[in-house]
Amino acid sequence: MAVFFNDHFAATENALLHVSDLTLQRGYAIFDFCRTKNRRPLFLNDHLDRFYTSAAAMHLPVRYNKEELAAIIHELIERTLQDETGIRILLTGGYSADGYQPASPNLIITCNVVKTAGLADFERGITAITYEYQRELPSVKSVNYMMAVWLQPLLKEKKAADVLYHYNGIITEFPRSNIFIVTKDQRLITPSRHMLRGITRKQVLSIAARQMDVEERDIHLEELLQAAETFLTSTTKRIMPVLAIDGNTIGDGKPGPITRRLYHEFLQLEQQYNN
Amino acid sequence: MAVFFNDHFAATENALLHVSDLTLQRGYAIFDFCRTKNRRPLFLNDHLDRFYTSAAAMHLPVRYNKEELAAIIHELIERTLQDETGIRILLTGGYSADGYQPASPNLIITCNVVKTAGLADFERGITAITYEYQRELPSVKSVNYMMAVWLQPLLKEKKAADVLYHYNGIITEFPRSNIFIVTKDQRLITPSRHMLRGITRKQVLSIAARQMDVEERDIHLEELLQAAETFLTSTTKRIMPVLAIDGNTIGDGKPGPITRRLYHEFLQLEQQYNN
Repeated sequence: MAVFFNDHFAATENALLHVSDLTLQRGYAIFDFCRTKNRRPLFLNDHLDRFYTSAAAMHLPVRYNKEELAAIIHELIERTLQDETGIRILLTGGYSADGYQPASPNLIITCNVVKTAGLADFERGITAITYEYQRELPSVKSVNYMMAVWLQPLLKEKKAADVLYHYNGIITEFPRSNIFIVTKDQRLITPSRHMLRGITRKQVLSIAARQMDVEERDIHLEELLQAAETFLTSTTKRIMPVLAIDGNTIGDGKPGPITRRLYHEFLQLEQQYNN
Repeated sequence: MAVFFNDHFAATENALLHVSDLTLQRGYAIFDFCRTKNRRPLFLNDHLDRFYTSAAAMHLPVRYNKEELAAIIHELIERTLQDETGIRILLTGGYSADGYQPASPNLIITCNVVKTAGLADFERGITAITYEYQRELPSVKSVNYMMAVWLQPLLKEKKAADVLYHYNGIITEFPRSNIFIVTKDQRLITPSRHMLRGITRKQVLSIAARQMDVEERDIHLEELLQAAETFLTSTTKRIMPVLAIDGNTIGDGKPGPITRRLYHEFLQLEQQYNN
């Protein structure tokens, strides 16, 4: 396995940051994560756009432009010699002299074998619980998943696979996934604000818009529980049915027909993808 | 300079963490910070109590008990050969296999020369702005200072030294300091919830309780601006007058008599401190 570290390729074991980096001092860093299929990074352009948006929002300069970064990532994939990987592009606050003010950012790109959800996972679906929480700067893909990691024991206790955040009665996102609902009259709805704009979310919206009514707007908790189908989208899970929330079965508790159709169309899109 | 790294002392330049550590993956880590005077760590027992409380709240086991950790810190101070240092005890989520679930924590203790605020800084005081924000798990000293670092450009623009957080109209804390107000009828008030319980805060409450009415309770923004005096407390700033907030002068815009008396009594306590 290889990594790219600021200005050179290195062995993975050398991807080391000094404790003075602002991530270790103050949790200050952003990243993005994309997946390769047959050594092609899926939707790389969208991921890089979001990476630069996150970096700019956090006042962190990126030393490479988009074309340079894409070239580095393609070379990293070649060096890794694996067909299906996850590429993580991390940009940190850098080695801060006072442990508080950002310095020259460290850029670390890793490329590791990644496991994605398969058809059997899709059929099983997942159950979720809800939790009131709002991420700070939600449009930024920062490394702050403190609440998500902290909630893991609660998820185990509740036998739930994931947690859906809400705030003031409005649902927003899972820690690493976006939420969609299909209403009983077959409209597809997903939150429009207070959450990260997922790349899979964008693709699913685009696929769905050709065949049904699509709305991006606030969704209340009550509307969620009345949905005919609910699913989440993410880079590694693609589209995953959410079959029960807080112990309430959604629809008939099985993956729904619209979720299933979108899932297969997304798989097709992925197959045809040529960056 | 020396560091302590899990189970051994090392040179500072070797305080390196692999990118798979959960701090760099998910911002998951806690720490505490204390200061030495004449090579004695001030209020170490309080800092260690808070460190273990933060660790437990975040489900992170500490491999040493309090006596062992204190002994390590004392040896680190001896090796550092400096009278006035800041000791940072960092406990991370560890090298997580899936980048999400906590693993065996990494413990890194650093000991660096630290600059504290002096009498001239006290006389100058600071000005602050307010900002609506509530930290997640506020009683935990986590590494998440993302909002505080992110606000630095706004502070520069407003020519303010620090930012006071409030939420739903109630003030809570500065990113690295606690807030106190002295009312016009000479009561000392400080928030009681939704903030980190500072060690200097605890000492100041104890000093003040011997000579005046002290209240720990919610403080509204309006009450803050009506105060006769306001000050902040922190390990490196001790007691620092806050002379203006959001452009509003507090009292007569100079360090007040009660703030001054508490400051000198705190300096005395520090001189007499013998851990």
